[in-house]
This record gives sequence, structure tokens and C-alpha cells, in this order.
Amino acid sequence: MTRDDALALDAADPLAPLRAQFTLPPGLVYLDGNSLGPCPAAAPARLRQVLEQEWAQGLISSWNQAGWIDLPRRVGDKIARLVGAGAGELVVADSTSVNLYKVLSAALGMAAAASPRRRVIVTERGNFPTDLYIAQSLAAEHGCELRLAGPPGEIAAALDEHSAVLLLTQVDYRSGRLHDMAALSAAAQAAGALTVWDLAHSAGALPVALHRDGADFAVGCGYKYLNGGPGAPAFVWVHPRHADQARQPLAGWLGHAAPFDFAPAYAPAPGIGRFVCGTPPILSLAALECGVDTVLAAEPLGGLAALRAKSLALTRLFIERAARLAPALALATPLEEARRGAQVSLSHPEIGWPVMQALIARGVVGDFRAGAPGQPDILRFGFAPLYTRFVDAWDAAAHLGQVLAHEEWRRPEFARRQAVT
Amino acid sequence: MTRDDALALDAADPLAPLRAQFTLPPGLVYLDGNSLGPCPAAAPARLRQVLEQEWAQGLISSWNQAGWIDLPRRVGDKIARLVGAGAGELVVADSTSVNLYKVLSAALGMAAAASPRRRVIVTERGNFPTDLYIAQSLAAEHGCELRLAGPPGEIAAALDEHSAVLLLTQVDYRSGRLHDMAALSAAAQAAGALTVWDLAHSAGALPVALHRDGADFAVGCGYKYLNGGPGAPAFVWVHPRHADQARQPLAGWLGHAAPFDFAPAYAPAPGIGRFVCGTPPILSLAALECGVDTVLAAEPLGGLAALRAKSLALTRLFIERAARLAPALALATPLEEARRGAQVSLSHPEIGWPVMQALIARGVVGDFRAGAPGQPDILRFGFAPLYTRFVDAWDAAAHLGQVLAHEEWRRPEFARRQAVT
Repeated sequence: MTRDDALALDAADPLAPLRAQFTLPPGLVYLDGNSLGPCPAAAPARLRQVLEQEWAQGLISSWNQAGWIDLPRRVGDKIARLVGAGAGELVVADSTSVNLYKVLSAALGMAAAASPRRRVIVTERGNFPTDLYIAQSLAAEHGCELRLAGPPGEIAAALDEHSAVLLLTQVDYRSGRLHDMAALSAAAQAAGALTVWDLAHSAGALPVALHRDGADFAVGCGYKYLNGGPGAPAFVWVHPRHADQARQPLAGWLGHAAPFDFAPAYAPAPGIGRFVCGTPPILSLAALECGVDTVLAAEPLGGLAALRAKSLALTRLFIERAARLAPALALATPLEEARRGAQVSLSHPEIGWPVMQALIARGVVGDFRAGAPGQPDILRFGFAPLYTRFVDAWDAAAHLGQVLAHEEWRRPEFARRQAVT
Repeated sequence: MTRDDALALDAADPLAPLRAQFTLPPGLVYLDGNSLGPCPAAAPARLRQVLEQEWAQGLISSWNQAGWIDLPRRVGDKIARLVGAGAGELVVADSTSVNLYKVLSAALGMAAAASPRRRVIVTERGNFPTDLYIAQSLAAEHGCELRLAGPPGEIAAALDEHSAVLLLTQVDYRSGRLHDMAALSAAAQAAGALTVWDLAHSAGALPVALHRDGADFAVGCGYKYLNGGPGAPAFVWVHPRHADQARQPLAGWLGHAAPFDFAPAYAPAPGIGRFVCGTPPILSLAALECGVDTVLAAEPLGGLAALRAKSLALTRLFIERAARLAPALALATPLEEARRGAQVSLSHPEIGWPVMQALIARGVVGDFRAGAPGQPDILRFGFAPLYTRFVDAWDAAAHLGQVLAHEEWRRPEFARRQAVT
């Protein structure tokens, strides 16, 4: 295969026009959409409308007349289409961390009500820190045990009659490993445990099927594959068979059954509405809607199934080229495609940071993550199929090869400094 | 006094030029800044910069290079200057409701550690619903009692050796009544209780002196007198003598002592940093900074003391004119100026809603709030001194008089519908 072959793949790619939905710096190979999706071309005009018309001219009336009050549900319904949930089941609210606190609290409460023996939260040792921290906090608060399972194959064995909740992130932020949601949800259900799925690295990147795959609760991130902007609000989903029973402790006024009655006693809204807490950040929410729309724009072209096929082809190409050109780096992402998200992670015990800095200096943006305890550091390359081209995968591998071949990473300007997700 | 006298007051007002900081619809008398502050003229250009430069061009690098990661503290430091707090003591994060949950949890934990007898949260029966709901939720979770005190004069008497926390909103959202923070904090301290102050209707409207007046914890709203935009992020302050000991349960990754180490165990950041939870919504935060800057712009002109003097003069004028022109409405706001916020509330047991709709149709925007149980409904008029003119107060009262004199409120188009804060 040659670079021209990569260009030919792009020319033949029916999804290629979707890239025009974004403003991307010319010449940059942006492979960090798993950390911050790019800016939708529609977002600046939409924000201008929100500021100059809805806020500046409409003022307080825009809560009703511009539909601000409905935005958490309206954007939630759009995200629901991307994760296999129904309309009215999912809302945009708060951050992923805050939403995790809500759903994990609710799940622990339901488990305790079903059986006082169920006092164990099972999760993965390598789960994203905020998932671990929120679970630690709630375990302490509820007098529960937090059980950390090791490799994916050992998770099901960690479930037993004491399990309250299985808390998993569908795609691992370090390795890009994709869990089998159906199998793990079934294992949890067989053990009598509820499942909480964090979709931060899967929503918008690949088909997620919350109903089909037996999930009970889910949260997800707006600013990665949903392209919602830096710190975009997150989302929360609760299976409708639980939503009317689930109690979450962040009992804010907008989660009330009748918030505009200003009643003195809290009465949770029916369904997912009770998982809203305070007033939603409209500017950030409006940008998130633009981002979600960029993913929905793929629906006439095959939607997430087509995007998934493309991201697998992109990661396959990058894995093959990187193995050839950068053999000093180990593949940390599963080769088996059914177990791979939209990201390729390469690892090295020592030079991960300067290699990534040298790549960025060449105009190839991935990112660096410190290794899990006892594990080597990770270089992450996200292949968001909405806007990443085959020639980007080709060029990224070529630049990586050059960085290593010429030992560019040894340059002093690539010495260590802080990373940001 | 005549309308020309009101115009003369505006012509002589040294704060009058501050109004030019906002984009306001021509001809509108906007008296609802206590619900949603107007759009700073600088905000659209700043948001354009955040979207088109920082996000679209800088992408992930903007977390460091555009200073996004520092925004919660940078804007927090600016707000600290408005509420009598020190630099590094206050952060912008989440919503008011979520921040209330954090600080009330922390305060209850501290109180319980000091004495297991302290299991009562004292608050006001008429506190804003979200304050009541969050307190109800935490009281249930911690096995505490929620004691609802009646009129302001009875609050101190509700405190005793069982009190854990006194939770108050400094300015009442319905009546505009201003609490004496120093006296009530002293009463709480004398009883051995901690104080949590909600500054939603005071921050940016009048001088707040958290340190001087003996507060322990505070939260506040970004979208009212701070002009931060619809659903702007809120803020949270903890007295530095508590901050390193306080534990809050929303243990998100950005509140970790070293978030970018991605360590498996939660270790709270020193000081106020532990009250941050997830990734901040940058677009909304950038707009909030523009709003806060509009208040800081008053500093060379006497700052909040000067703004306070003006808002009292505005409310005084409106109260006098409304008493003359709309005697059917009762004044629900204290006449004593030391007990009045920047808002005037008029009440009527029956026609509050249609009167406000008729006023809005005349271009005078206040808002309506259902009365507390057993109390008449309220018409609220906010006199944010940054942009409200004396002639606005004059004209608002004149229109109100016309609405009542001609019984305009009887028109069918002013029948009841949903209100939004």
C-alpha cells in the first residue's frame, strides 16, 4: 500500500463529506478527538444567535420562547438515538462525574432495597479516575466495598451474590479496549447486580445499544466523540423500568415534578427528569447540540454502523503502518476488532512523552497518558471517523516513524510537562 | 418629583456609563436581572474568540495555552473580590444546587465530627426551593433533622446545641429581604453551628463580606447579578480555616490533588480546589467572566458600595411611586433599607400573574412568583444598579399604574401560563 492508495480510499469514502462539518486547522492531523472533538462549523453562528438574539434581545423570555428550558431533553433525545435509547429516556446535565454520582447512588439504593447483602461495587482497576473516585466516595458513604477487578476476562468472576453494581467504562481511556456490553451486562444480571455504563469513549464513536445490551444506567461525555466543545455538559440515561423508582441525592429544583410551583417539599419528576439538578448551562448546551448534530448527519449515510466500519479501517491501517515504522512502540490496543474502540494506543516504558511532543511539533496531535501502576506509558491516537481521513492515518504513522528514526524525541524542547485531557 | 427629575438623576449619576457595557433591547425597561442578567456587549466577541480561535484552531492545546484549565480559579478570584473573600478561596464550578450539596455535606461532616449531638440543619421555611430540596436530601442521607424557622426574627431562636448548620439565602428570592449576615453568623457561631450562605440574590448586587461577617461556607449564582448568561456556572467558597479539612462527596477527577497523574486513589486537592468536580464548561465559563467583569468595572467608581447606594435609591424611588400609582398592590419588601436587597416585590392575592403579563406587554419586564403557602403571589422588580436607570424606575411605576387604572390585566391574552426563573 502507498500514500496514494490512502488518498484513493478517501476519494472513494462515502463518509468523507462529513469532514466539511468541522473547522479544522489546515495541515493538522488531529487524532485527539477522543479527548476534545473539533469545532463544528455551525457552532459559532449558533452561539452568536444564542448570545445576540436569544440572550441579548430575548432576555428572560428565551427560557420559553427560544426553548432553553427544553434543551436538556431535546439534545438528550438526539443523543438517545446514538446510544440505543428511547426518546424521553436521556437528559443532558452537569458533568460526567456528577452524573456518575447520581446514577451510582440510585443503583446502590435500589440494590440495598432489594437485598441488604448487596454491598459491593465491582469495577475495573484501570477504570477512568473519576469513575474510581466517585465509586470510592459512594462506597464510603454507603458502607459498601469497592472491588477492583483486573483484566476484562476476570470481571465476570468478580460478581457474586454480594454484588450491588457493576460499574464499567465501555471503552478504556488508556488502551482503547472495547468491552462486550451485552455479555458483561448479562453476567451482572445473572449475579443479580445492576450495571452502570460510562460511555465517555464510545458514544458517538461506535454503535451503542443500551436497551439491546441490557444496561441499567449510563452516563457519557459531551466533549469527546460528540464534539460538544470544551467541558460540554454530559448526559445521563436510566432504563425506563428503573427511572420512576430511582432516587438520586442531588435533588435540585429543576428535577422537581413541578419546578415552577416553587413548592417547599421535593417531589421528583417522573422518569429521567429527576436526574436533572440545577439550571442548565445554555451556551455550552447549544454548542453541544451542534456537535451531536454532526454525528446525526451520518444517519443517511449508514449512521454509526458505517462510522464504526470506517474507524476500524482507520485503526487497522494505523496499526499496520505503525508496527512497520515504529517497532519500538508496543500496541496496547486489542488487535481483535470486536474488542477495539475508535482509538489506537501505543506504549513505551520511557519515551512516550517526548515522542508525543515531537509528533505534535510535526502537526500530528495525539496525546499522552501515564501508564497504569506497573504498566508502561501510553501514546493515544483517536480515529474519530466523522472527520479523520485515511491519509491522516497514513501520515501519522509516517511522522511517528520519522520521529523515532531521527530520534527527534531527544530534543530538549520535548522534555516533560503537564498533560490535559 | 417629575420624570424630568428622574432623567436629571441619571444625567448626574457617575455610574450611568456602566450601562453601556450591555446590549439591551432599545425601549425595554428590564427589571429581571435578578433572574437573568443581560448580555455584556463584550460577550459575543469573547465567545467568538473561544470558538473560532481557542477551540477550532487551538483544539486540545487550549486547555493549557488558552488557560482553560485555570478559568475556574481565575474567574473565582474575580468573584472573590465581590464577596469579601480572598484570592484562591473561591472557584467557579457546576450549578448552585450541586455546590450546595457539596458544602452542606462538608459542613454536616464537620459538625458530626465535632459532636454527634449536632444533627439539625436550620433553615428558613421560605428559602429557595433548591436549598430546601438539597437540605431535605442530605438530612435524609445523614439522618439529620431539617428545622424550618419562620420569620427572620425567629431564626436565631431556632439554633441550639443540636444545631449542625445554619443554611440561609442572604436575599430572599420572593421578598427581596436582606439578612444581617454578621448577626446571624454570630448567632450560629454562639450556638456552635456552621453557616452556609447562598448568595444567589446578593453577589454582584450589594457588598458581601464573607470574612468580615463570619461565614463558613458560601455558594452563589453566575446568571443573576453577575450577568454570566443563561445557566452560567455557579461558585463555591469555603473559609480557608475549613477548606483543607472539609470533605465533599462529589469526588471528581478535577478536584484531585494531582488530576493529571491519573492516580487510582482519590486524594483531594488542597484548599478550595477539592470543591471542583468534573471538567468545567468553558464556553459558559468564558461568558461568565465577561459578566463578572461588568461588575468589576465599577471598582474605580466606588465599586459595590456605590452600586448599593444607587440600587437603594432606585428601589426607594420605585417603592414611592408604586405606592402612589398602584395602591392595590402591597409592598412585600422591607421598607428598612438595611433589610432590602436590590429588588422590590409587590404582592396581590389574585391578579399578580396578569398584571405582570400586561406590564411585559408594555415593555416593562419583571417576573412573577407564586406566593409561599398561605401568602399572596409576588411581582418581582429587580433594580440591578449596573444598568438600571432612574427613569426606568419611574417609567416602570407609571406603566404599572396604567395597567391597574385601565384594568389592562383583564385582557384574555394575559391569562395564566408557566413561568421560568
